[in-house]
Amino acid sequence: MKFTCAKTDLAQAVQTVSKAVSVKNQNPILSGIYIKAENNLLELQATDYEIGIICKIEAQIEESGQIVLSGRYLQEVIRKLPGVNIEIEYDRQEKTAHIKSNRAHFTLLSMSPDDFPVINKIKGDFNFKIRDNILHELISRTTFACSNEEARPVFTGCLLELDGSQVNMVATDIRRLAFQTSTLEDFEGQRKMIIPSKILNEIQKLLISDTPREVNINYNSNQISFELDGTYIASRLIDGQFPDYNRAMPTSFSTRVKVNTEEFRSVLDRVALISRTNEYKIATLEFSAGMIRITSNNPEIGNADESMTAEIDGEDITISFNVDYIADVLKIVNTKEFYISLNSSLNPASIRMLDDESFTYIITPVRNNGI
Amino acid sequence: MKFTCAKTDLAQAVQTVSKAVSVKNQNPILSGIYIKAENNLLELQATDYEIGIICKIEAQIEESGQIVLSGRYLQEVIRKLPGVNIEIEYDRQEKTAHIKSNRAHFTLLSMSPDDFPVINKIKGDFNFKIRDNILHELISRTTFACSNEEARPVFTGCLLELDGSQVNMVATDIRRLAFQTSTLEDFEGQRKMIIPSKILNEIQKLLISDTPREVNINYNSNQISFELDGTYIASRLIDGQFPDYNRAMPTSFSTRVKVNTEEFRSVLDRVALISRTNEYKIATLEFSAGMIRITSNNPEIGNADESMTAEIDGEDITISFNVDYIADVLKIVNTKEFYISLNSSLNPASIRMLDDESFTYIITPVRNNGI
Repeated sequence: MKFTCAKTDLAQAVQTVSKAVSVKNQNPILSGIYIKAENNLLELQATDYEIGIICKIEAQIEESGQIVLSGRYLQEVIRKLPGVNIEIEYDRQEKTAHIKSNRAHFTLLSMSPDDFPVINKIKGDFNFKIRDNILHELISRTTFACSNEEARPVFTGCLLELDGSQVNMVATDIRRLAFQTSTLEDFEGQRKMIIPSKILNEIQKLLISDTPREVNINYNSNQISFELDGTYIASRLIDGQFPDYNRAMPTSFSTRVKVNTEEFRSVLDRVALISRTNEYKIATLEFSAGMIRITSNNPEIGNADESMTAEIDGEDITISFNVDYIADVLKIVNTKEFYISLNSSLNPASIRMLDDESFTYIITPVRNNGI
Repeated sequence: MKFTCAKTDLAQAVQTVSKAVSVKNQNPILSGIYIKAENNLLELQATDYEIGIICKIEAQIEESGQIVLSGRYLQEVIRKLPGVNIEIEYDRQEKTAHIKSNRAHFTLLSMSPDDFPVINKIKGDFNFKIRDNILHELISRTTFACSNEEARPVFTGCLLELDGSQVNMVATDIRRLAFQTSTLEDFEGQRKMIIPSKILNEIQKLLISDTPREVNINYNSNQISFELDGTYIASRLIDGQFPDYNRAMPTSFSTRVKVNTEEFRSVLDRVALISRTNEYKIATLEFSAGMIRITSNNPEIGNADESMTAEIDGEDITISFNVDYIADVLKIVNTKEFYISLNSSLNPASIRMLDDESFTYIITPVRNNGI
């Protein structure tokens, strides 16, 4: 095998597939990146069996072939090479790859390509297209609400729900829930699947570009794949029953509060200095007489107490939340103002953005017995 | 106690003394910052018995007094306060400090100021002044060569050597040595002392300013203090005999090489990708026929091989070094070109900058038996 390609192309492709390189070391071949050179195309692959990524770039191929190189060293070496172009040649006898760029010459040991579990693309009739910015919004506004507890796999993923021209993404860890909806073109029927949030987060990073692109999605009963430009990402689906999220979303509220986002964010940030160190991370919000008062108390450190004005429509309420659960959603609120809607100190509250009906966040209060 | 001061002044002072706040938790009072309000001055102190820092700022004092607050929480709270001014008032009954700025109100528990080991300034006749930029250069060009091994304390510090109008700073971990010299005004006599590098690194951070300042240094047989503007830093000295560094510095060389700094730095950076993973971190340099060839070999990964042109004056030499020891000194080389001077593959080499005689770096080669 021998080829020449542009350094920036190869560096980008290696970085993309590196996300699927196994770091667990359970099987050495999974720590490698598989490279196939054929028909003026380089195909790079990496997989840890949970996620598989294929990336294709153009190259001048002098001799076809396949190799597997250490993902870690390939990434570090390619990134630092001095030239515009890179030549890679496989030495069959030494079982090494010679990587050359200007006067730099690296030799990396190769693993056997026959041992690499080459990724088979998902084939079948189940597929749809989605615009990259819509998929980005669905992912970025929900995955943060997933659970990290592997013991309950359903909550470590996001529900993707297709219902005719509507597409919903939902994530919950039981104590809070994030819901984002959008529209799909050219889709008929209904379908639900649970996608690991880890993989959605990787896909999200690929979705930032200046020109709008279509993402092709294929799926079957236990796998899903995302394809855009030269990149293909496949993931297993999570098996299980996602809870009926509609039942968790209150239909009416007794109090609605319109809040300045930036001001609330900085007040909460200060109060969190005290509550973050507390076992329960509790901040208490008092809505009354056109003011929100936010307090936190930690017997070992002290307390914080700050007020800000807000438009309060409805009854006075005092309610306590896990401060992280509010801080998390504030990271994605991108409107100048947002709504907090409440019923009582024991009922779930909702957070929605101003003039944006597509997103809903539900948060369960904590009982604060003055700890 | 009750006072008002500017937020930026207090935040700066708290950050400065925080460097001396103990993180080891051996004694809770040492995790605190002592604050004394008196005569329209706030004095902040922190110490972990190794280093002590005092910082003074102006304040409007309504009632004199002393408190000790948690260094960690005080720093976090002050930094995030919303207003231009901060009011702090001690509540004797609650034993808490009320910290107010705009609508934010924090209450922090106070420790007893009577338990705080208040720092006594070093008094006596032994003192000299040094310009801040000279002290900065002495520190920044040497401390990196110190050892981290607490078992041999002498090598964890820098030798400060005063000899009439000459001042030298020297650091070594036996395998390499960094030497920087400069001139002192108004000093007579000779003096040697070993200062912990940890403290020199903290002092270095305070020495960056737009206007040249004088640093006042006081010392006795076991302590040294540095004073500039409103900040006073005291440190213990390291007891022991610093090796005779003059014997480690070769007086003549058989080969002198003039090297382009930027090019050498990036070649070494690439070759280091392979050698850093090796137990001995070895890079081999071949100086011959107007070229430097740098190679590294690691049987488990592969090897790196790159050449660059250089002005070589003298005999051909092949020599191996710990790659970190070269990378470290390259961080401080600030001239476009530098010299490597050598005698043989087994003798120490020297690195000096072009047109700057004040700095010398000596590095011992490693034997490379083709591992």
